Amino acid sequence: MPRRIVIIGAHAAGVDAASAARRTDRTAEITLLTKQKQAGYSPCGIPFVLGRHVSSFDKLVVFPQSFFQMMKLNLMLETTATKIDTESKTVEIQDKTGGQETLQYDSLILATGASPFVPPIKGREKQGILVLRTLEDGRKIDQAMADGAKAPVVMGAGLIGLETAVALHERGLKTIVVELLPQVLPAMLDADMAKMVQEMLEQKGIRILISKGVEEFLGTDRVTGIIAGGEQMNSDLIIAAFGVRANTELAKNAGIVMGETRSIKTNMRMETSVKDVYAAGDCVESVSLITGRPTVCQLGTAAVRQAKVAGINAAGGYAVFPGVLGSAVTKFFDTEVGVTGLTEFFAKRAGIETVVGSITSKTRPEYYPGGLPIRIKLVVEKESERLIGGQIIGGEEVTQRVNALSFAMQKHMTVRELAKADTAYAPPLNETWEPMVLAAEVALRKLR
Amino acid sequence: MPRRIVIIGAHAAGVDAASAARRTDRTAEITLLTKQKQAGYSPCGIPFVLGRHVSSFDKLVVFPQSFFQMMKLNLMLETTATKIDTESKTVEIQDKTGGQETLQYDSLILATGASPFVPPIKGREKQGILVLRTLEDGRKIDQAMADGAKAPVVMGAGLIGLETAVALHERGLKTIVVELLPQVLPAMLDADMAKMVQEMLEQKGIRILISKGVEEFLGTDRVTGIIAGGEQMNSDLIIAAFGVRANTELAKNAGIVMGETRSIKTNMRMETSVKDVYAAGDCVESVSLITGRPTVCQLGTAAVRQAKVAGINAAGGYAVFPGVLGSAVTKFFDTEVGVTGLTEFFAKRAGIETVVGSITSKTRPEYYPGGLPIRIKLVVEKESERLIGGQIIGGEEVTQRVNALSFAMQKHMTVRELAKADTAYAPPLNETWEPMVLAAEVALRKLR
Repeated sequence: MPRRIVIIGAHAAGVDAASAARRTDRTAEITLLTKQKQAGYSPCGIPFVLGRHVSSFDKLVVFPQSFFQMMKLNLMLETTATKIDTESKTVEIQDKTGGQETLQYDSLILATGASPFVPPIKGREKQGILVLRTLEDGRKIDQAMADGAKAPVVMGAGLIGLETAVALHERGLKTIVVELLPQVLPAMLDADMAKMVQEMLEQKGIRILISKGVEEFLGTDRVTGIIAGGEQMNSDLIIAAFGVRANTELAKNAGIVMGETRSIKTNMRMETSVKDVYAAGDCVESVSLITGRPTVCQLGTAAVRQAKVAGINAAGGYAVFPGVLGSAVTKFFDTEVGVTGLTEFFAKRAGIETVVGSITSKTRPEYYPGGLPIRIKLVVEKESERLIGGQIIGGEEVTQRVNALSFAMQKHMTVRELAKADTAYAPPLNETWEPMVLAAEVALRKLR
Repeated sequence: MPRRIVIIGAHAAGVDAASAARRTDRTAEITLLTKQKQAGYSPCGIPFVLGRHVSSFDKLVVFPQSFFQMMKLNLMLETTATKIDTESKTVEIQDKTGGQETLQYDSLILATGASPFVPPIKGREKQGILVLRTLEDGRKIDQAMADGAKAPVVMGAGLIGLETAVALHERGLKTIVVELLPQVLPAMLDADMAKMVQEMLEQKGIRILISKGVEEFLGTDRVTGIIAGGEQMNSDLIIAAFGVRANTELAKNAGIVMGETRSIKTNMRMETSVKDVYAAGDCVESVSLITGRPTVCQLGTAAVRQAKVAGINAAGGYAVFPGVLGSAVTKFFDTEVGVTGLTEFFAKRAGIETVVGSITSKTRPEYYPGGLPIRIKLVVEKESERLIGGQIIGGEEVTQRVNALSFAMQKHMTVRELAKADTAYAPPLNETWEPMVLAAEVALRKLR
């Protein structure tokens, strides 16, 4: 009898898990289910549709119907998993008409993702507090603009909040961002680096209010504004980007163990506390390759890598997921912002004694036109001299510099070794002395 | 009495050695001498002035007179070192008027560079065979274009040859490149990757003749064409880019030992066989970090790194240079071409059993406009599964991918580890699955 693999979730993690499972077991019966109307799209692309860099939401569907057919995957849309029974190895599901069914599995993969979180602020129950997570969410925001919204307020200056604010600004809307913490991108950058991003965004015309909590949602049935830091802001488009929380209800109800981050705990094979039940993506807890401690890493790149491992194992193969460095990058207007490993702040919070090396340089020699400024901050564990984090803000090639630092950290490179690294140079493409190497030199001087 | 440091050469290696020496010893008397009229310029920039990306040759002077004054460096232009006496620790020098002088040194740094090499082809003694090495060389080629040259032939399809050919083509000249070996960039790329570069250049309109030796220079006193592969080519601008040879005469005459590559042999502190005599840059032999064997690495990035080590040691400090991976990159039109470590060809020649992983991908998701193709080839040592080389051709972020692979190799990363690397992604900047990781997967499948 063919192996029956059920996957709850059919987006980044779900589809990559299904692909890996199919490649591992050609004959398995693989079923994916999702509550949503569309599967296999890239949620990371939504802000870029809003900003009109991508022409339509439909383009974000990277795995079309034909993919599921070709890979012989049984895709169930608008279908909700209501209960998992790990004894009988069954999943109860419900379709949009209310029709119920019970699926039998040999292996189960939880790719339930995460959901936007709105703190218990007064008036939270009002209509019209939009979030940005699914294609439907994106379409609602787009519709609000089509309906003539002019004055958006984005609550939360994390990655999604700022990407959305930039998109709204690019569409010509006078955009305000409100952030409780004293800096933008608090999960990604240290305050000194965040300040550079904030100033750049403000120069472009986005109003950013930091250290301001949202105290109340205004309006009668429908939200029409907020009070934040004592200031009343009327708004015709309110977007909550406070962050997301792992979707764990289903797993918890099935008795699956959560980690200390309140996400689903797995071993290195992405198997949960229950045999034959795997999990991957935004719903799981990861291990930091730097601290060795549990961490939450809700990034698409981590999701697909975990999903691949879960899919291989669920299909009878063998694969392990070693952990995360949290390498991430984005682009605000023409500025690229990237991070890998720990920030100085999070390193300190993890009890790690650090030195940092920061430098501002250019991406090309002075004489070569088109060079852009680049700022690099390296975080170094003082005792071992090992690189444990890097933050980069610059005009080009930030992504692959982040990857370079990530590779270095994966192999425990010291800042002393980085200061001697063999780097590539040509006048149209880089400075003779690579800025990462110069930043390593700066850190090294503090260690001597 | 202050330490007397004499540096022969005042370009990339010479000036960086002087800077490092000055930072190490504030009171040293540091003298640099060069035969040339200008010091401290970037020779790598010359083709980009010819192509008019940089507006004048003068802009390439990255260390102006004021730098030498600020750093208290005694710079002697148009001055030739004629003899080194390592017993008396003296250098005999001659200025442009023929005036002679003897300099006493405590430490000597040889940064004598390399010179273009023209093989013993019939008619080699004729006037007008231009080379491209110094600013003067660049100016002569520029003058030839100003004088109406229309039909250049570039002999040699190495990095300098092709960069020059592209520049001439960008200036509207119908350019022919002749290469003895059966591929372009033979020192940099494997034949399969080189073919892609050749086809791209041919599509742009550059005529490239491979596997064709230059048999004769034509003309009476002045060269007016060549015969290559039996074909006669008349030309009004002939550029010899056969490669360069380390300038070692002075060192050899002083009894300094050469390595098996016929360049100056040094230890890890960049000290030659003679105490207190250091060497750096294109005149020295390097050690490959992959093979542990001597190699010639005539790159600006290696030169400045070696020079820094030589300068620190010459000034009484301590520093070591670990060796080279040969990371290099260039840009032909809109295509970036990079390499690090060994090619498959050179790995085989070094007796290393390899597998390769090659992939063609894009620099952004399908749905995001502006994504460009990228081709990555990884070379892996079969027994250890270690990455030993990478070649990349693509439209963006090639340089920092080369650096990422370089960092990985410096820390002995296996292709299995690379296939699990934590990489950064955002729709405007990269694919979810980084192409380097996909290439590692391809190689890994061949190892299983």
